[in-house]
Amino acid sequence: MSSPYTLILLRHGNSDWNQKNLFTGWVDVRLSEQGVAEAHRAGELLNESGLFPDVQYTSLLTRAIQTANITLDVADRAWIPVKRTWRLNERHYGDLQGKDKAQTLAEYGQEQFQTWRRSFDVPPPPIADDNEYSQANDPRYVGIDGDVPRTECLKDVIDRMLPYWHSDITGDLAEGKTVLVTAHGNSLRALVKHLDGISDDEIASLNIPTGIPLVYKLDENFMPIEPAEYLDPEAAAAGAAAVASQGKK
Amino acid sequence: MSSPYTLILLRHGNSDWNQKNLFTGWVDVRLSEQGVAEAHRAGELLNESGLFPDVQYTSLLTRAIQTANITLDVADRAWIPVKRTWRLNERHYGDLQGKDKAQTLAEYGQEQFQTWRRSFDVPPPPIADDNEYSQANDPRYVGIDGDVPRTECLKDVIDRMLPYWHSDITGDLAEGKTVLVTAHGNSLRALVKHLDGISDDEIASLNIPTGIPLVYKLDENFMPIEPAEYLDPEAAAAGAAAVASQGKK
Repeated sequence: MSSPYTLILLRHGNSDWNQKNLFTGWVDVRLSEQGVAEAHRAGELLNESGLFPDVQYTSLLTRAIQTANITLDVADRAWIPVKRTWRLNERHYGDLQGKDKAQTLAEYGQEQFQTWRRSFDVPPPPIADDNEYSQANDPRYVGIDGDVPRTECLKDVIDRMLPYWHSDITGDLAEGKTVLVTAHGNSLRALVKHLDGISDDEIASLNIPTGIPLVYKLDENFMPIEPAEYLDPEAAAAGAAAVASQGKK
Repeated sequence: MSSPYTLILLRHGNSDWNQKNLFTGWVDVRLSEQGVAEAHRAGELLNESGLFPDVQYTSLLTRAIQTANITLDVADRAWIPVKRTWRLNERHYGDLQGKDKAQTLAEYGQEQFQTWRRSFDVPPPPIADDNEYSQANDPRYVGIDGDVPRTECLKDVIDRMLPYWHSDITGDLAEGKTVLVTAHGNSLRALVKHLDGISDDEIASLNIPTGIPLVYKLDENFMPIEPAEYLDPEAAAAGAAAVASQGKK
């Protein structure tokens, strides 16, 4: 098969903890009703676009898996092969997991808050293994390469996500398959940073809206031949603005 | 890992066409509301049993995939690896696909009806490629070994299912993984016939109820070390009787 290859990125919809304004990270919360509706809408957008995934990738977190299941069911593609990996998980938020965003902002101030949320290479404090929101003993992570993270910055996410992009996802693209990656704000930002050549500084201000498929056309080196497009550009712009204002509740 | 190995079989719940009393086969109908409820119940039964699948297998048919997705979501195991194969599909019902069971029974008589439903080696007449219920041009079957079937008897199902059991499913069992196979009345009858050493004649009267996990403990040769058990034996007996009476509407 020859390029251009088609890659579709999809950030899971609103979750129970988005609504409660809590830092989530690797905590395995479920989609809210709004998130379920967003996943349906993503499936309808795929139908309208005529783009049909041949293979799907998800993280190991339920909210991304729910999103993929619903979206593909609506698109009549529930039957395509599935590959799941912890390498597409959301950024591990360390000791912030389970904490209220607005309260954290009030307690530590805007600068520290923004550093934890958006610094490229400064992770939050690590989570203790006996914290109820730790994943140190979660059975789904038995056998992952290295230890389960106790905290991550975006650089850490890139370091564990990009090797999988090169080793697995690009292999399906090279076979001419349209690939759907259903994942999280930060694992997708890590991939977009690579694809769009965004600098370590500029990535801080990039926000990916939930529930709107983002379509890349890639060349034989798996790099974009044109700017990526959201299937619903207006809703995407509004969604990105909403993500940027998080914490200011 | 050492035996015994654990295998869980699950027949998908009631579908839209079960309710309409139509022959379904490879036609890709969805679960009915009752079928969705059965899948939830299957997840609850897994939770109560303490048996948790490490890997799941499904057919390429939406009703089995919906069942697996719901059951595993309820069991908090949405994240386990998924493997899908047409070799676990329902028996292809040939030209009967889309036809009313009661009407077919009235038209052809009990003997012909039971031959088509339960004969080991006599398939129904083949379906024409231009029949609206044919799968000759369904994109999900592009690349399957050999042609898409136009009809199948149970013997045909065994011939395309058992090689996959030996090549793939037993490999996961050998690694000590608890395997969940979510499939269909006839693909599961084919597997149970092999496991329980049921004769070609006796298999005709074996009926597998929908939505109730059936648990096997297998030895190092992947054969049962004791009779398999349904997680809800009373409901299973009632369900098997209901399947046996199908067509008599």
